[in-house]
Parts: sequence; C-alpha cells; structure tokens
Amino acid sequence: MTQAMQRQQAVTIHKNEVFALTAEQLQPQLIYRDCKPKQIIRVVKNELAVHGWQAETIQGAESLSAIAFGKGEEVILDFGEHLVGRLAIRIIPIGSPPDAPLHLQITLGEMPVEMAESFSEYDGWLSSSWLQEERVHLDILPSSLNLDRRYSFRYVKLKVLDTSPKYKVSFAEISCTAETSADRSLQAPLGHTDPELQAIDEVSVKTLEECMQEVFEDGPKRDRRLWLGDLRLQALANYETFSGNDLVKRCLYLFAAYPDERGRITANLFMKPQVIPDDTYLYDYSLFFVSTLHDYYLATDDRNTLEELWPSAYRQIELALERLDERGIVTDDETWWAFIDWHPDLNKQAPAQAILIYNLKCALHLAVLLGNERQDRLRQTIEELTKATLDHLWDSELGYFVSGDIRQVSWASQIWMVLAGIVEEERGKRLLLRLQQDSAPIPMTTPYMVHHFIEALIQMGERDTAISEIKKYWGQMIKDGADTFWELYNPSDKSFSPYGSHLINSYCHAWSCTPTYLIRKYQL
Amino acid sequence: MTQAMQRQQAVTIHKNEVFALTAEQLQPQLIYRDCKPKQIIRVVKNELAVHGWQAETIQGAESLSAIAFGKGEEVILDFGEHLVGRLAIRIIPIGSPPDAPLHLQITLGEMPVEMAESFSEYDGWLSSSWLQEERVHLDILPSSLNLDRRYSFRYVKLKVLDTSPKYKVSFAEISCTAETSADRSLQAPLGHTDPELQAIDEVSVKTLEECMQEVFEDGPKRDRRLWLGDLRLQALANYETFSGNDLVKRCLYLFAAYPDERGRITANLFMKPQVIPDDTYLYDYSLFFVSTLHDYYLATDDRNTLEELWPSAYRQIELALERLDERGIVTDDETWWAFIDWHPDLNKQAPAQAILIYNLKCALHLAVLLGNERQDRLRQTIEELTKATLDHLWDSELGYFVSGDIRQVSWASQIWMVLAGIVEEERGKRLLLRLQQDSAPIPMTTPYMVHHFIEALIQMGERDTAISEIKKYWGQMIKDGADTFWELYNPSDKSFSPYGSHLINSYCHAWSCTPTYLIRKYQL
Repeated sequence: MTQAMQRQQAVTIHKNEVFALTAEQLQPQLIYRDCKPKQIIRVVKNELAVHGWQAETIQGAESLSAIAFGKGEEVILDFGEHLVGRLAIRIIPIGSPPDAPLHLQITLGEMPVEMAESFSEYDGWLSSSWLQEERVHLDILPSSLNLDRRYSFRYVKLKVLDTSPKYKVSFAEISCTAETSADRSLQAPLGHTDPELQAIDEVSVKTLEECMQEVFEDGPKRDRRLWLGDLRLQALANYETFSGNDLVKRCLYLFAAYPDERGRITANLFMKPQVIPDDTYLYDYSLFFVSTLHDYYLATDDRNTLEELWPSAYRQIELALERLDERGIVTDDETWWAFIDWHPDLNKQAPAQAILIYNLKCALHLAVLLGNERQDRLRQTIEELTKATLDHLWDSELGYFVSGDIRQVSWASQIWMVLAGIVEEERGKRLLLRLQQDSAPIPMTTPYMVHHFIEALIQMGERDTAISEIKKYWGQMIKDGADTFWELYNPSDKSFSPYGSHLINSYCHAWSCTPTYLIRKYQL
Repeated sequence: MTQAMQRQQAVTIHKNEVFALTAEQLQPQLIYRDCKPKQIIRVVKNELAVHGWQAETIQGAESLSAIAFGKGEEVILDFGEHLVGRLAIRIIPIGSPPDAPLHLQITLGEMPVEMAESFSEYDGWLSSSWLQEERVHLDILPSSLNLDRRYSFRYVKLKVLDTSPKYKVSFAEISCTAETSADRSLQAPLGHTDPELQAIDEVSVKTLEECMQEVFEDGPKRDRRLWLGDLRLQALANYETFSGNDLVKRCLYLFAAYPDERGRITANLFMKPQVIPDDTYLYDYSLFFVSTLHDYYLATDDRNTLEELWPSAYRQIELALERLDERGIVTDDETWWAFIDWHPDLNKQAPAQAILIYNLKCALHLAVLLGNERQDRLRQTIEELTKATLDHLWDSELGYFVSGDIRQVSWASQIWMVLAGIVEEERGKRLLLRLQQDSAPIPMTTPYMVHHFIEALIQMGERDTAISEIKKYWGQMIKDGADTFWELYNPSDKSFSPYGSHLINSYCHAWSCTPTYLIRKYQL
C-alpha cells in the first residue's frame, strides 16, 4: 500500500487507552547487527537487466580506505545484501589541512537503478522525499559521520560534491548497523529439496525480517508504516518463520486502540512522533482486522486477546454490512474506497463483496469459538450474502463474476470469490485456470494480488499450478536480482511502476513476503 | 585572506607546549543572544543595486506561522541585521498526518544576491562548499530542527523541496542563537558629530564583533580562520572598542606555539578538530607577528607576554632577512609568497621590502623597551635597508618606488614605503596624492589595502583626505547595503570578486573593520 490515497472525510478518533497501553507494553526490542560493504562496484547499462542497469564488481571493499576522492569523484559500495539500518562513515582528509568544508552526497539504493539514474530527474507522483539521498557539509575533518535516519538499501554511493583544491578525502570506514525486531535464532531454515523453492523461501524470510521493526512495516524504504492489509499477510508468514507473535498482537491492539467515532478501524497507523491513525479508511482493510485476529488466534490460542478484541472485530462487520444495498450487494458509488489491487481501472464492488463474506466466515468461526450469541446471525448473513452474490454478481453467460455497473470481469473478483468459498472446488478451479487462458479480464498488478491467486489455486487443489506460478513470479524476481521481494513486479513489463517512476518503487515490501507462508503452510 | 594559496613545501611543526597551554587557558566564553526574524521579504531585480538585487519587505515575520507551504513553495526571512550563530526551526505539519518525509532546503545568505541566484550555477574557483545551503529530510513532524553548523547570515530562505499531496508545513518558530566572544557591554558608542562617520563606526564595530569568536576569525562565512594579517588589524580595532585583549594574547600565543622547524610562523591556523597550523607561509604575514606583538604591548603593557614572545617575534625578523640579496633587497623569485593585496598582477618585492622595514622598526622599539642587546644590530639593519631601498627601488625619473625586475609601480609599494617611514612627510604626502591622479599604477583591490592607504594619509598629515576616502569607500559600502563591511569592494565594479563569483565573497570580513580604529585612534 502507499500513502497516495485521497484524503477522506474528517473523523474523530476515540482512543482506547487500555488497548494503547497494551500495545505500548509490547514494544519489541530491536536486534542490531554490524554490517560492512563487500564490494566496490560500478553500474553498467544492460538492456537485459531489470531497469536496464546491472552491478559489476570492480574490487573488494577493503581497498576503499586507500582511495582519495576529490571534487566530483564518487564510489559505489555494495553491502552484498539488503539492509535496513543506520550508516556510519569515517572520513579522513588527505593533503593540506582542510581549508573548506567537505560537501558530500550520500545516495542509498535497494537496486542498481538507484545508483545509476539521477534523482533530480525523478518526476513520479509519489513524494521525491522518499528517495534516499542526503547532502551534508562537514566543517571539521577527520569526522565520524553518523547519519540520523534509517535507510533501506544494499548499495551506497558516496560522491564528493566539493572539497577544495588543497585536500581530498578517504572513507576510512563505512558500516551499517542493521536493525530488525525479527529474531533469526528462532527461525529454522526450510531445507527444501527443490533449490528454487528453497531460494524463494530464503528471500521471503529476508523480506519479512527487514519489514519487522517496531511494528510490521509495509516497506522499510517507503511508507515505513503499519498497514492492515500488509499486516495480515506478514502475520501469516511470521507464524511459519520467526513466530514473532507478540508483534502481531501489538499491531492488533494498535489498530483496535484508535477507531473513529463509529468504531471503524483505519487502514494504517503512523508511529512517530506518537501513534497517529491515518485518515484513510479502506473497506477491505478495515474488514481484514477480523481475519487477522482470526489467524492470530489460530496461531497462538491467545484467548484473552481474542476476547478483548472481538468487539472491535465484530464492529468492522457491522459497519461493512451498512454498505449493502437492498439486494445484499456492496454499494459501489463515489463515497467509498477499497484497495483490492493497484490496477487503475479495477472495479472494487465484487472483490469487496467477496472480502466481506471471507471475513464474515472468519467472524463466524471466532463467534463459535467464543460461544458468542451472534453466531446464528452471522451464519444467516453469510447465507443471504452468498445467495445475493450468486444472483447478482455471477454472470452465467460470461461464466465469470462481474463487478459494478460496468459488469467488469477481473482476476481480483474471481480470486476473491474463490477464497470466500462462494463456489465449490471444481467450479473454482475452472474459474482460476480459465483466467490464465483469457486476456480480457482486468489483470493482477501486485504481488499482493498474486499471493491471493496462489492461495486460491492451492485451496482448489491446484498445487502444481501454484508451485509453477510461484516460480514464474517470485522465482523470476530472484533471477532479475531480487535480494528481497519487491512491492511491484510484472514479469512482462519489468520497469512497471504505478507511481510514474521505478526509482520510487519499494524493493523490499511486506506484501511480497508470502511465498514462505505458502510453501511452508501448504508443504509445497 | 583566503584558503586558495598554493600548497608550499612540506614542513615539520615544532609545537611549543607551554605556549599552546597558555592559549588554551585563554579560550574565551562565548556570549549568546537569541534573535528572531523581522520581516518576510522578496528579492527583486534592480540594476542600481549591488549585484542587481534588492530586498523588499512583504510583511512582518510574525505572520510566518500562519502560512502553509507545499511542494516548491518558499519564503525568505530577514533577521534585520547580520548574525553569526545557529538556526532553530520549529516545523508543524498542516493537513493529513505526514505520509512522506519533508525535504527542506535552507539557504542562508549575508546578501540579497545569495537569496536570488541559484547556488547550483556557482562556478567560482573557491570551493562551493562555502555556500550556505543545506538539504534535510525530516521523517517525523512536528519537528524542532536544530542545525548543527554555525552560519553567517542576515537572510534565510526556506524552500519546501517536497512533502506529499496530503500535507503542507508551517514554520511555527525560527530563531538564531547568535554567538560572539566580543562583550558589547565593554564597548562605548562613539557618538561622533558626523553622522556618516558615526554610521561607519557602528558598522565597523559590528563587523569586528561578528568576527570575534574563539579566535579572531577573518570571516565568519568563509575561511572562519585565524589569519595573522587579519589579526593585526582586528587587534587594532579591538583596542579602540571591545578591549578583548586576552583574545589578542590568545591568538599571539597560538601563532607562537606552532612554528615550523626553522621557527617560522604560519600565515593562519585552523582551530578544529585541534589547532593545526596551515602549510601556507607568507613573507609579510610572518613578519606581522612582530608588529602585532608590538601593538599588543603598547595597548596592554603586558610585559610578561612581551618577554615570552619576543624570541618568536625576533625569529621572524631573522628569517625575513635571509631573503635579502647582496644589495639588501628582498629576493623576488618563484620560491616565495607574500600576500600584500589581491591584484593578480601585483609584484610583491617592494611592498615586502617596506613591510620588512616596518616590522624591523617595531622590533627595534620592542628591543629598546626590553633593553635587549639586539637593538644596535636592528638599528643598523634598518639604516642599511632604508639606504638599499632608496638606492635600488626608488626610480627618480618615474618618481615612484618600483618593484621586481619589471620595475612595476603599484599603490601597494608607495603606501607601504610611506608606512615604513622610508620617505619624509612631504615626499610621502606627494606620493600618495599623486597616486590618486594617476591611473597607471597597479590599483588597490581590497579594504585591507585601502586601510593602509588611509593610515598612510593620516600619518602624512592628510586627515581630510583620509576622512573623505573613508566615506568614499566604507560610506559608499553602507549606501550599497552593508550591515557589516565586506571582504571585497570596488566602488567602480561592485560585483568584483577575485574568486569568479560574488556569491562566494565574504560580506562580513575582519580586514574591513578598521574604520573604527582609524576614526577613534586618530580622532578623525
């Protein structure tokens, strides 16, 4: 998810102090690791590489300190792995005493393209302030420069903007203190017999690790925020790997602590300078509080949390049901927003309807577990909505679920209908396999949507197709240079960005970390 | 002076620990003052203004906090006076919670031109790292941004490089903690009956105040260093105003503490990260240690310092005499460097000869005061050198002193010969007045040289001419907008810079602060 959602109506937050305190007490300890660059590289044009740029090793990074850099000179360092952390650079003057400040530019990038293309030419529609580039003046040398900000990167470019004719500088030491709240020691390697799935699993786990900070972040480079839709998938991957279950609990309490005056849960939270619920509300994301709580309980048996947060979860169901028209179908008009996927033309009605039913079923399961009196009402609602969906959104001539007044056919609609259990296995399987042969439906655009496609395939018994699709998507991403999985990836348009520039894409993104969940959970 | 001197031969420093400790113990307490901006301004083109730019008030600065700034928007603030200090800005987000970092550019300038012309187009030959412009990313808002560096400025431009479409920012508070070691309470206003001289005195005092920091700095914007040639003039202005005599003493001990292996005193010292003598040695500047000690003793009667530092001073005389040829004239070849003035074609031989004699006379005076046995030798040397100068450097046909093999006639040569007392008063007076009628001699290019011209005029009894020249130069600088006196000023070419760009000139520069000395000392 991204910050580019439109501002919605003004809301009042009704903070739940008890929940907020519980979340605060679950603040994780960060784990630090000291990392050094491995190589000095250059980035060269290569039309076959993603974005057209490829890293090439020049020499080992241990030779860095012997090189003197004057005005306009630069070096690119490769840390050999994706890192999230803080940078420290020891800078030594060479020559006469420095008779002018050092003006240094530091560019950090997750991908070679960020080292190759000038940020000053960026013209995407997300804020350029996400581009990781600093300019610092150092009046006193030698200097131990400790940059305040946290960066998400594998590559660092140091460029001397100016010194003076009387001195140059060398970079005696450069290091990154990487940080995460994921505890590697708790995570066992998968040891898969298929080396490709093994590699995909490892990159998935690394992606999740980098996104586990004080909360589950969507992307450590851009947004760096707790989004409910991302949290749901991260939590699933986490149960199979790091088992950082208290971090999931903390995030659930955070969302529950800051509802609006109607009890609606925000799509995302800012953590600094204090917890701030964003004024973005998404139909699907609010509902995912239910399934995330459901998954959490199944993973942990933490009945106390379930009991405390059940009212918050149930309230999302109630609010979602208010959007139903007299037919029992989610109203599609100008007053709402659901995410579903990034495709600009995607109609959200049918997938939102399916997501509502999906979460109703999670709620029903929880209500049964709790012995809650609402279970009959939930059961009845599920029946009514399923019937309404089949009556009004299934187009028997087309053989697809359709969405909105335009009766749009999309992958998202079919996939979510399958996941919501609207169709039985055989019909679901046919629907999914037919999508692969048909170029007409609105396609998937994000790993987030591809994840749901894979999970639907597995649930319809199409395990081999699921494995092959994982390899075609995440496996190809690795072949294209992914150290961590990317926010956005289109194997047939590798420079795709919904933001107008691939420089601003996040190349370590939570919603892309799910292959480890899919592979481990379903023993693919 | 500037840092652009060529690197000279490698030297070994013989640190005098006792002198270094004395200097350390004289470290001054800085005096802090909280300053707020006065006006919001714009800078407009005006062909009649210096550099073609003029500040125009838009509204009072108290309205700043009510303005919201989005991407690409900027504001220019005028603090109403030149300041040296640290900047603090309180930044508040307006709109939705900030969903992307703030990227802010902060440009500080002493002059309107620095607010108007882009630093990115700077192409002068001094390091662009002196241009006072920072770019900062703020991840967390609201933020109290305290910039680490010290700036020299009157104007501040805040430009929002980027936020996001969801929020803007306001600048709730902006302040500068000005710093100086000059104690205003010790300095009495002049109260001159001539308002123009009164104004010139005030700006002189302000200039000196801004340059008095942990040492006497040459310019708080650029170089920020202790140069011996500047120190000599600052000390003279200081005796008439702030009487910060311990700061002069500290600077004398600093220079004496770091001679090279031959006892030669450097042209300038760096203070951070520890005291470092620059590897630049200037014939005239080393000699000025003698006259600066001489002036200090006359101002303070501090006999202990005189006795301790006399050997260092006398050593500069000995070393300078080693450059004499068999005629008793300073050798002019490729192996030396003297500053004298900035004119690129200026031959340094004759003015250096005069400066040697000038300092010999200071040394003789000190030797007499100390009852030192070298006084006879000094007296004899002065006689020999004076005769040699008149024999070899005076051109009776031209009626000027000439310099170098090219027998160059310059203002600098005539002025220094007068100050060195080579000619009697009537001839000196004629020489100086003739310069004003003659366009052929190499002209003066700095306030530093103009100072010596004025002092020579006064010593030749030309007080009225001196006053009129002060008004024509420093008075005109004030009319051209000087809050503090400038490093460089040519009334007939107001954009003059020896550095290829007026952006890099220093507009508060120690060697330009001397009118207060001239006016008060000589009761002009």
